[in-house]
Amino acid sequence: MQSDIEIARSVTPKPIASIAAKLGIPGEALHPYGKAIAKIDHSFIDAARGRARGKLILVTAINPTPAGEGKTTTTVGLGDGLSRIGKKTAIALREPSLGPCFGVKGGAAGGGWAQVIPMEAINLHFTGDFHAITSAHNLLAAMIDNHIYWGNQPAIDSRKVSWRRVLDMNDRALRSVVSSLGGSANGFPREDGFDITVASEVMAVFCLSRDLADLEARLSRMVVAESRDKAAVTAGDVKAAAAMTVLLKDALQPNLVQTLEGTPAFVHGGPFANIAHGCNSVIATETALRLADYVVTEAGFGADLGAEKFFDIKCRKAGLEPDAAVIVATVRALKMHGGVKKEDLGKENLEALEKGFANLARHVENVAKFGVPVIVGINRFVTDTDAEMKLLVDACRDRLGVQAIVCTHWADGSAGAETLARAVVDMIEAPRPAPFAPIYPDEMPLLQKVETIAREIYRAGAVAADGKIVKRFKDLEAQGFGRFPICIAKTQSSFSADPDVKGAPTGHTLPIREVRLSAGAEFLVVICGDIMTMPGLPKIPAAEHIRLGADGLIEGLS
Amino acid sequence: MQSDIEIARSVTPKPIASIAAKLGIPGEALHPYGKAIAKIDHSFIDAARGRARGKLILVTAINPTPAGEGKTTTTVGLGDGLSRIGKKTAIALREPSLGPCFGVKGGAAGGGWAQVIPMEAINLHFTGDFHAITSAHNLLAAMIDNHIYWGNQPAIDSRKVSWRRVLDMNDRALRSVVSSLGGSANGFPREDGFDITVASEVMAVFCLSRDLADLEARLSRMVVAESRDKAAVTAGDVKAAAAMTVLLKDALQPNLVQTLEGTPAFVHGGPFANIAHGCNSVIATETALRLADYVVTEAGFGADLGAEKFFDIKCRKAGLEPDAAVIVATVRALKMHGGVKKEDLGKENLEALEKGFANLARHVENVAKFGVPVIVGINRFVTDTDAEMKLLVDACRDRLGVQAIVCTHWADGSAGAETLARAVVDMIEAPRPAPFAPIYPDEMPLLQKVETIAREIYRAGAVAADGKIVKRFKDLEAQGFGRFPICIAKTQSSFSADPDVKGAPTGHTLPIREVRLSAGAEFLVVICGDIMTMPGLPKIPAAEHIRLGADGLIEGLS
Repeated sequence: MQSDIEIARSVTPKPIASIAAKLGIPGEALHPYGKAIAKIDHSFIDAARGRARGKLILVTAINPTPAGEGKTTTTVGLGDGLSRIGKKTAIALREPSLGPCFGVKGGAAGGGWAQVIPMEAINLHFTGDFHAITSAHNLLAAMIDNHIYWGNQPAIDSRKVSWRRVLDMNDRALRSVVSSLGGSANGFPREDGFDITVASEVMAVFCLSRDLADLEARLSRMVVAESRDKAAVTAGDVKAAAAMTVLLKDALQPNLVQTLEGTPAFVHGGPFANIAHGCNSVIATETALRLADYVVTEAGFGADLGAEKFFDIKCRKAGLEPDAAVIVATVRALKMHGGVKKEDLGKENLEALEKGFANLARHVENVAKFGVPVIVGINRFVTDTDAEMKLLVDACRDRLGVQAIVCTHWADGSAGAETLARAVVDMIEAPRPAPFAPIYPDEMPLLQKVETIAREIYRAGAVAADGKIVKRFKDLEAQGFGRFPICIAKTQSSFSADPDVKGAPTGHTLPIREVRLSAGAEFLVVICGDIMTMPGLPKIPAAEHIRLGADGLIEGLS
Repeated sequence: MQSDIEIARSVTPKPIASIAAKLGIPGEALHPYGKAIAKIDHSFIDAARGRARGKLILVTAINPTPAGEGKTTTTVGLGDGLSRIGKKTAIALREPSLGPCFGVKGGAAGGGWAQVIPMEAINLHFTGDFHAITSAHNLLAAMIDNHIYWGNQPAIDSRKVSWRRVLDMNDRALRSVVSSLGGSANGFPREDGFDITVASEVMAVFCLSRDLADLEARLSRMVVAESRDKAAVTAGDVKAAAAMTVLLKDALQPNLVQTLEGTPAFVHGGPFANIAHGCNSVIATETALRLADYVVTEAGFGADLGAEKFFDIKCRKAGLEPDAAVIVATVRALKMHGGVKKEDLGKENLEALEKGFANLARHVENVAKFGVPVIVGINRFVTDTDAEMKLLVDACRDRLGVQAIVCTHWADGSAGAETLARAVVDMIEAPRPAPFAPIYPDEMPLLQKVETIAREIYRAGAVAADGKIVKRFKDLEAQGFGRFPICIAKTQSSFSADPDVKGAPTGHTLPIREVRLSAGAEFLVVICGDIMTMPGLPKIPAAEHIRLGADGLIEGLS
């Protein structure tokens, strides 16, 4: 069997200008990065804003398990499937982070015959967007410490700098450091630390900004420290936002690549799905919608986190109205939710599948609460039995009233997703059951917003918030942040805050540990559990096996 | 008067393919980055290695002063002058570092009508080479701490990690840190720190490597730590070199841009000129030499550091034979060497010029010691008087036996450097007085190499090396590093180690503080004075004034 990278290399990418032409993007609007990648010029994007939007399809999933679900693969497969049946289609995906490539896994650009290419470039430096975000983030950090060093006004309390530094690298040694050591020429020693670039608020701001002016305004509002009299100090106060915008100017232009079958794919931005909203950039999704009739995009993690944030943060803020959602499930993953261990997944187990089905059912019900029509996409593995398939399809139809379509795009490319594509189009063309609506209104009090998500989506019995948290919400409301949406950071592995609770738990408690203000991204991060913002490397990192082969090609990336 | 950036923007760059065509580079060998920048494919570069080399001209300078000399400007102007008189010419320059752009000065791509463009792109992210070097450097750092964390073999002594981290940012707060704090999950706390990316040994290795295989071999040999039994631990020992090479694969392909007048310019690599050798990449210089009849390149700082390292490190190691050197001087800078303060430079002062001339004379004598024919290029400023010009030209001719050519390329472009170009060509075509030779042979003992440079180039009376330094040299010789050239890190402002000693001092003492092994770059860094490897930002950094204007153009970069 061919590996992902072997499959990716077996297809020669078409010149990017010919891919762009499918969406009516002229050559002069392209900034090429090699032969198969281009950025789309800001001016073309601005000019396209007046056009009607195409249909927006979200690909989301059950709670992830080690068995794998194939959300990106299904996003790519569905996009190719729509192209196959003659629809003018674009895909919008997140950019992969460089750091994790060298850790456990190789790449992240789909798999099998449902991939975006050029795979190596996308997984490594790509067009430098994450490097630009890293530079902008760290320029602000340097300017904050420089502001303290020179005693500039407003006077920052060096104990109250909340802006950490970032690198696009898995590097646990940098999680917690003491900086500015070595004498007075190096500043005032203080506690500091590094996150991975995808966890930067600059990344979230980048992905939610409408254009360069919006980007600069949002960057300027980011709160980075406190003054000695406890007033918030922003990036604007240290005069960093304009230079950061200059560093991000080119990066904000969305990247255009292609699938193995030549469907245009925008791959742009990639915020964390826990402390941020986990979707590709608004500017990429918006551009895709103005140019294509069907746009397939994905959200991070499972639907409880990813789809909820896609609807309540990204769609709400960008004025997007999703037309359909595909919830990806696999028999293997549902069996894990039903209690099967990873090593036993190859064996038929209808009882466990039945039990694990509850996880899928819950996500289907949840997405419907936003007024978005749902289809289940079953990403079929070779070990799945016909009896398992039948159980799942029948249960979706009979018990949930939704279609479940078996897909084999991993092995078969667009042919394996054609049925799903037709079903999605039919569903979108049918009368819509309800209009799209976020799950809570802007004006709802903050704690009540959290309670709403916990009740409606997680099915928790209670939210645990101590007096300090309650006061924090009140203070944020008093400071004018009460209309911000909530971005919950919790485990992706369970509806609850406990990663070991599989299936569809109810009555659990959602414990709020901390609330962080993302004033530029315009959401409040509500932390419910241990959230790691700087990964480490394993004992034998993937980097040890990534190398140039004798043929000059990269080995070990997948 | 137009600013540099206004001039740069007044010229529309020609399509990069047409610039490449001037050197016979076909379109299929180009990897475009936007419309005016391309990387040259490794395969084309390898295929060109068999061709005859063109003539190599080094542009160097007197000891720098705050008055400015215009070395890059002269490199560009001479290149354009050679093109103007019909010579097939290429320029080879260093890439500017991003960090300093946000500090004191704006950009670094020449000036006036002698610039390389697109200026904004070159000064900001360009083709991402420095980001790739930052990533490769920090991947190694993460793998070292990860190696310690997991207790992998060979066991590294966490107190003896010499490999620091890097960022392309002026950030004094990171000069000295304690890392791996916060508990056992984050590793073993230790002293650590960050340098600016141009100070990375990866940068020096990158710039001295012949090809990807050489790059990987050199990276692998870099010494990063010691084991508990005091054995050297290399990047190869922590299995990082192959993945680092993958990160650097595209970056190692030289970048092609153009001057305002359309002369092809390779802008590639940019190591520090103190703890490293301060020249653009060998691969760029080599490629330029195989494609053009005349190649103009520059070295860092003044000729005492820059030209000496260009000859003794880069040319020696890459087998290059320079055909000519241009030493750039200005009346203003020579008057500063003669004791005039910066605010008085606008006034004619023949006495000070006469006194400061000694600095130029010394550099002319020094370069001749390498067997390289010399011309002086006088970069004329509007305030320079005719009497000052005459004094300088006459003194060069009568006392040094070299031509001094007055140049006005800053104001006039190639027309202002045509005379210099003709003189350089004539000099190259005349019989060579002596063959090129480095100032010391490979087999000379290490301390004696330092003494040779100190005596022949700096005209020091003595080298101060205590017992520890002497032993260090002996140990390095015993370990097989005795054939490495010396890379002296000292102030660029003086022949001596004291930046305040202007002119042409003799009899001073060169104090050796420390010796560092760059086993991958293959030189020994001999530190003679305070060397800053992570700059800070000033009280009002340039970043505060860098912004996007209402027209979408970048302001404040120059």
